[in-house]
Order: sequence, then structure tokens, then C-alpha cells
Amino acid sequence: MKKILNQPDDYVDETLDGMCAAHPDVYRRTGESGRVIARAEPGFEGKVGVVSGGGSGHLPLFTGYVSPGLLDACAVGNVFAGPAIGDCVDAMRAADQGAGVLRLYGNYGGDRMNFDMAGELTELDGMRSATVLVADDVASASHEERAKRRGVAGVVYAYKITGAKAEQRGASLEEVTRVARKAVDACASIGVALTSCIVPEAGMPSFTIGDHEIEMGMGIHGEPGIWRGELKSADALAAEMLQRVLNDLGIGAGERVSVMVNSLGATPYEELYILYRAVSRELAAKGVSIVAPLVGRYATSMEMTGASLTLQRLDGELEALLRAPANCPFWRS
Amino acid sequence: MKKILNQPDDYVDETLDGMCAAHPDVYRRTGESGRVIARAEPGFEGKVGVVSGGGSGHLPLFTGYVSPGLLDACAVGNVFAGPAIGDCVDAMRAADQGAGVLRLYGNYGGDRMNFDMAGELTELDGMRSATVLVADDVASASHEERAKRRGVAGVVYAYKITGAKAEQRGASLEEVTRVARKAVDACASIGVALTSCIVPEAGMPSFTIGDHEIEMGMGIHGEPGIWRGELKSADALAAEMLQRVLNDLGIGAGERVSVMVNSLGATPYEELYILYRAVSRELAAKGVSIVAPLVGRYATSMEMTGASLTLQRLDGELEALLRAPANCPFWRS
Repeated sequence: MKKILNQPDDYVDETLDGMCAAHPDVYRRTGESGRVIARAEPGFEGKVGVVSGGGSGHLPLFTGYVSPGLLDACAVGNVFAGPAIGDCVDAMRAADQGAGVLRLYGNYGGDRMNFDMAGELTELDGMRSATVLVADDVASASHEERAKRRGVAGVVYAYKITGAKAEQRGASLEEVTRVARKAVDACASIGVALTSCIVPEAGMPSFTIGDHEIEMGMGIHGEPGIWRGELKSADALAAEMLQRVLNDLGIGAGERVSVMVNSLGATPYEELYILYRAVSRELAAKGVSIVAPLVGRYATSMEMTGASLTLQRLDGELEALLRAPANCPFWRS
Repeated sequence: MKKILNQPDDYVDETLDGMCAAHPDVYRRTGESGRVIARAEPGFEGKVGVVSGGGSGHLPLFTGYVSPGLLDACAVGNVFAGPAIGDCVDAMRAADQGAGVLRLYGNYGGDRMNFDMAGELTELDGMRSATVLVADDVASASHEERAKRRGVAGVVYAYKITGAKAEQRGASLEEVTRVARKAVDACASIGVALTSCIVPEAGMPSFTIGDHEIEMGMGIHGEPGIWRGELKSADALAAEMLQRVLNDLGIGAGERVSVMVNSLGATPYEELYILYRAVSRELAAKGVSIVAPLVGRYATSMEMTGASLTLQRLDGELEALLRAPANCPFWRS
């Protein structure tokens, strides 16, 4: 295992230590286990709390997006493992400013079970809460069964748009929930993997793939995709990924979208821009306008090679929320 | 070769196309060959121009740092190859606002030859210019022969500090040059490589390294380092890198530094934060204060695995310039 770490069992806690040491004005470790990251300065009284959580190994997801204009708190699991119930509860308590808490996270079985339980436990204390699941990966289920899809990089758009709404004074839990659902419904993603990453505790690649093979639609934990075959050109990859996402959302001429071209980890900026070039040309040819594009590392699987494409359809409300201020090491607007 | 691209020969031009398509408010392609990136909006009349250049394959270096508060223009070479003389000339012309131009770039033979020639050619047109070379890699020559060192991630601090000075109305070429020299003299770096990257035109790894081996002090193009041996713990790597850099700069208790923990490409944020944790603890124990730390990808070698550590010693002048506003996709302050 060729990774820069100390003991594999300390990978997550030392990462959180380092994040808080580097950005003490943004992040604060809290919770009984220390596996909750909350804002260094909590939100205003009466603010709807927005919490998330998930496995480690995806930075900037999930923890990196705790900041004003984004999340209030995040429960942190082991690498590729959901957060514990107690940490979900502690994240909700850290986010609670008396106006209720929205649980906004990617659609994975373990995360759902534990966040649902945390919702029941905090209800006993009188905390109001709601859930919106992000399920943007078009490769993981058909359009008809979209509620079964996994959450991938689209989670970032959901955080940004929802976080901006929750930052508005007077916004209720119901309104924040409505906006989160609207954002999630208008977002779709697909990824392509070229190589695996290594989970520290496992010490070996999560999956094997041939020297010239790729897998279209693979999930961020190596979940199976749509097809496995020979590596194609960047333009061919971009065209297929874009078509699948556009078809799913039914986006056509005259619409406005934000586009995210996201590295799964090792794929460099150069190659993301080559993909973006192709995507932006295809969208221009279709009469679709790009707003506030994102090119970089937003949702990764450590050192996995590959990239994902996310489209977030925008109307006036969502675009204003997407552009609203936020300030953390991984998002500034 | 498992990379996301079209034709290897188009790698650089398509990357530049993508950057300009994604960020048309920041970057503009110019120059006879199209291998110059200039600010979308030029600096004010009478501003000292700051230009750089270098090989491709290091994004965000070098081109990514063209923006207000940073560079005015950058000449772009092929992957790991210096920019052509004509592109250096065109970059200088794009940066020229009548107050002279500083050529600020990493110390590599080919780059020097071509930028020197560009200086002579533009002098014939009456343009005043000066050169400051960044030579921050402590592994590449002894302290006594530091002028022979290579430029690595410390280039980013030189850009930021110099760019901020050049943004001050009335700052002369001599003053901007003085600040650039001061920043460069107060900066040192070292890197550790775990795996090679692949240059698209070559199609195979630039160097071979064993499955459990690392190379301390390797350059960003795979230049030989100080030692090659077994992978150590993150804490042991951090301690050795920090000691080498501290010794070189002679930094001790009571001083203020900015610290950059930089991924060479594939190494993920998690591992950068594990390194940062160790570095920040060691510095605290030595009584050295950290100001405005940087953890992320600032100077890469595409998908190379590894990390570098840079320390920028600060006084009041340099700290204010480091914190001054700049706004590009890769730096916001």
C-alpha cells in the first residue's frame, strides 16, 4: 500500500486533526467520539440546521463543505463506511439552532439507517427534522427507479443550494426542505473510472481493472457501472456521459445548467479541462447555456483515476442560491 | 497510457481551450501560437507586468495563476518542456503596461535561455524588464549553491507576493523586483515522490520506482533526489522534510511562516492533512507560528503520487502581500 499515512486505523482521525489545524476558523471537531465536524462559529439563532454525513475518503466530500453558506455539521464515518448513529445525533445537535434540522446526504443504505435512527432519537428531545436524499448517479438505476440511485458529486450542488437557502433569515425547515428537493430533482451525474483507489484499512485496491480498460458509470466506492471496455478518447467519453445525463434530465435548447467536471482523485486538471472543453462545445451546439461551471476535485475516492460529470439544471431561484456567498477551503463564491 | 485525452499532441492546446472556456472572465489565449495565457482584462496603465512561463503538466502551475493580484501573462510550453522564445516575447508584450515587465519563473535551463532571449528581443522595442528566478528546491543543490536549485512549489508564493506588489499603483519595476527577490530568498521546498506520472507524448511513466519505494527530494519532472528507499510513515516523512527546509532557511522560535503542503497530483487531501497535522505540531513545538497555510494542489506533475512541503518565511511586508486580494480558480484571498 503506497499511501502517505501513519497507522491505517488513524487515517480518519488524523485527517480531521489536520483539517482543523489548517482551518481553525472554519472547522471544529466535536461530538462524543470526535467524529463530527461543525462550523467553528455556529449559525445564527433560529437558523435551520443543515447536516450531512458519510464515509471518509471522498474529500472535499463530505466534511470539507462545513462552512457558512453550506453545511452546519457533518458526521464522519470510517473510509467508505457510513457514520455511526451517535455521530449522526451529535451532528444534528451541533447544527440545531431551534428551527429544525435538515438531514441532507447521499443515498446509501447504512447512512440512511443511521440517520433515520438519529432522527427518531432527536425527536424524543423535541427536535424537528426532515430528510432529503441525494440520488444523482444515473448509472445506478433507471429514471423510473431514480429514488434507488446512489448519491455522488451532485451532493455538492445540493449542499450549496440548500445551504444558501438555510442562510436566509426566516427560512423555515419546510422551505429549506422544498429547495433541497428541488435541487436534487434537477441534478444528475455519471462517472467513469480508470483505476481503483486503496482503502487504508484494506491495504489493497478495491477492485481490479485492466491496463487499457475503463468502467463507465462506476460508483465512488467501486460499485458496478454500465459497461466495462477499452479506454476511449476524451471527446467520446464526454459525449457519452453528457448524453446520458441530458437524456435523464430532459434538458434541451434554451435551458441553463451548471456543469461540474470532477476528478475522482488522481486525474489531473489538464484532463478535466480537456473534458470540459468537449462538454462545453456539445452544450453550446445544443443551445444549452452554462452558468458557474466547476472544474476540479469536489467528490473523490482518494487516489482513484477517473472523472465524473454532473449537470444541475437551474431556474432563477436555484441560480441565485448557487451563486450566493459561501466560504470554505473548497468553495468560495 | 491510461489518461483522459484525445491526441497526445493536442493535450496542451485542448487544456488551454478548456481553461478559457470554463473561466472566460479570468483567462484569455493570445500570442501568435496561442500558447500565451493573459488576463481576460489587462492590468491598469502604468502597472508593472509580471510574466511567467514553463512547461505544461503542472496545473495549477504555471498558467492557472494568471489573474488580478498574481500574473499578467504566462508562456506555455509542451508537457515538461520550456516555452518557445516567441511565446515568451508575446507573454511579455501582453503584460506590458508601460512600466516594465518582471520575468518571474522557475530555474530551469531551457526556460532561462528562452526568457533571456525574449528579454533581449523586447529590449530592442524599448521595453524595460528584469528577471527573478525561483530556486526553492533544497534537494537540488546545497545552500551554498542555492542559485543552482530548481524551482518547485515555492513559485506559487513568489507569484502571490510579487503579484500583490505589482498591483500597487506607483510600484516601480525596481520595487517589484526587490520584493520578488526577497520572497524567493525566504522560501524553501522539498518533495517526496511515490509514483511517476505519464507524459502524454511519451506514453509511458517518466521513471520507475519499486512498489514500496519512495524518493526523497525528487523534482517535479522526476529529477533525481537525495535518497531512495522504503516508504516511511507520514510523521517520519513530515519530520525529515520539515527539518531539511527549516535548516536551510535557518528558521527558529518566534518566527512566522506560511506552510504549503502540496499534492504532486494523485495524493489525496486526506493524506495532505495527515502531513499537515505532523508539520503543524512540529512547528508549534519549535515555537514557529503558521500564517495562512495552504493545503491542496498548487504545483503538480499530473497524476504523480507524492507531496511537497514549502515554507515561506514572512515579515510584515511579505505577510501583507501574501494576504492581499487575488481571485482566480486556484487562489482566492
